[in-house]
Amino acid sequence: MSNAIHVIGHQQPDTDTVCSAIAYARLKQAQETDAVPARAGALNPETKFVLDRWDVEAPALLEDATDDRLILVDHNEYSQTVPGAREAEIIEVVDHHRIGDVETSAPIFFRNEPVGSTATILTGLYDDADVEIDSQTAGLLLSGLLSDTVVLRSPTTTEADRTAAERLADSAGVEYEAYGKELLQQKSKLGEKAPREMVLGDFKEFEFGPHHVGIGQIETVEPDAVLTQREAVLDAMDAIVDEREYAVLLLLVTDLLEEESTALVAGDRTETVEAGLDVTFDGQEAFLPGVMSRKKQVVPPLEGAFEE
Amino acid sequence: MSNAIHVIGHQQPDTDTVCSAIAYARLKQAQETDAVPARAGALNPETKFVLDRWDVEAPALLEDATDDRLILVDHNEYSQTVPGAREAEIIEVVDHHRIGDVETSAPIFFRNEPVGSTATILTGLYDDADVEIDSQTAGLLLSGLLSDTVVLRSPTTTEADRTAAERLADSAGVEYEAYGKELLQQKSKLGEKAPREMVLGDFKEFEFGPHHVGIGQIETVEPDAVLTQREAVLDAMDAIVDEREYAVLLLLVTDLLEEESTALVAGDRTETVEAGLDVTFDGQEAFLPGVMSRKKQVVPPLEGAFEE
Repeated sequence: MSNAIHVIGHQQPDTDTVCSAIAYARLKQAQETDAVPARAGALNPETKFVLDRWDVEAPALLEDATDDRLILVDHNEYSQTVPGAREAEIIEVVDHHRIGDVETSAPIFFRNEPVGSTATILTGLYDDADVEIDSQTAGLLLSGLLSDTVVLRSPTTTEADRTAAERLADSAGVEYEAYGKELLQQKSKLGEKAPREMVLGDFKEFEFGPHHVGIGQIETVEPDAVLTQREAVLDAMDAIVDEREYAVLLLLVTDLLEEESTALVAGDRTETVEAGLDVTFDGQEAFLPGVMSRKKQVVPPLEGAFEE
Repeated sequence: MSNAIHVIGHQQPDTDTVCSAIAYARLKQAQETDAVPARAGALNPETKFVLDRWDVEAPALLEDATDDRLILVDHNEYSQTVPGAREAEIIEVVDHHRIGDVETSAPIFFRNEPVGSTATILTGLYDDADVEIDSQTAGLLLSGLLSDTVVLRSPTTTEADRTAAERLADSAGVEYEAYGKELLQQKSKLGEKAPREMVLGDFKEFEFGPHHVGIGQIETVEPDAVLTQREAVLDAMDAIVDEREYAVLLLLVTDLLEEESTALVAGDRTETVEAGLDVTFDGQEAFLPGVMSRKKQVVPPLEGAFEE
């Protein structure tokens, strides 16, 4: 690829990660910086729908970032980024997750805020730079925001997200509740997916001390489409644990309408997960009332439990 | 100490670190957050002068932060922070250095910008929060800014620093060049300091891969006050290398008027420093024309050389 700076989101890209990469590259271009958006994996059906809806070309796939200059959006952990990133120069980070293991030699712009989406932070960065958000870019940012916050219903949602959503919807010329419903329907299109694809569709890896842990999440309005295939999904999870040597693999099947999750678990460290989440697994399954956010409600207690 | 959040800067505190802790705690208080400033070590003469000048009480010394809630200002590396910080909850970071090794379980507010001082970023945070900067707080922020940028002469200085300095000087009711000169004179008061105190007065530790490296800096308008005691200073450096098992200890004696540094070196890895800085040491001494910033001109090439 070119010598331009690559603005890139996490692996297993979701709508917030892809739309944030595009929107931030556009802001950089408006500021005369040679930046292009990129992606670290295949697009999911929701993101494809969004790019079609706003008539935007998909960012190019970046397979190896060695020796590149990178701006990371929507993540700041090496285990979640594009291959070769440890040998790249990371020149900026814009994110809304926990602080991970990215280190730099020189001072850089690093903005992390505990809000519902990276798109929300980018809306603020456009304002800081006094650059107008055109209607297409507003549509992309709104999509990232509504996807990550489950149309402002996730417990990660803040006042800043609500304010940004209203304003972006206005610029994009859509009504955000109605548009959000369209997005949720895309998110739920599990349809003919194989169990393995379901598990790995929205998947993140973490290093909790010496332990390698994988946490997948399926956000859906039809949890039964997954749970009726419970045994096949658990078989797929067991196979992934063996291949990747996870201490544990947790899959959250999140019911977007009921605002609750069913967790499936595989690997040897089920007890640590039970201690962390304060639940008991019955046949590798547990019910997590009120749990919608992997980042805020699952990762911190699990990390704590694994480090004890 | 109390259950309040502690806003704290790095060890071997300097004026930017102390003034930033005070100013950010004040902003938090204005936003109804129970925060108090703290410091991780003894005040240097320049900072004492500043607190006297603006009639502000020194922050309390925090000796152990275990189980505290911390806001880190002006640093984001465990090796530079208050003891116990690994067992504390880090809830925010505001800094202008390289990205270090601080990790968190949950998403936090983390703002790092490549500008000349943490005080510059805080000036922006007051604006973001729409909180007015009173004249005393402006005096503190101006002091941090002018101290860290050597009155806007350091190569780390940006346009944002210049704009903030003018505005803070206006609010504080001083002329910044004249006030900056007063500060520089304080910085240079090496006077009766013992060689060991000179080396450790403004001192930072780094982990470059497996190597433990210490880098001290003496910013002065009278470099000869240090260099005429060269042998005693080198003896003190050798002793510190032995005690702390450094691979290398580098001391920058920075001439603020000529905008250049003389480097003294101790430890076994002189060759790595020579490779990194592209210089040759003659009897443990090398001349570094144009070098004023440890952070920007010394740490990145040294880290690169140690990791090769």
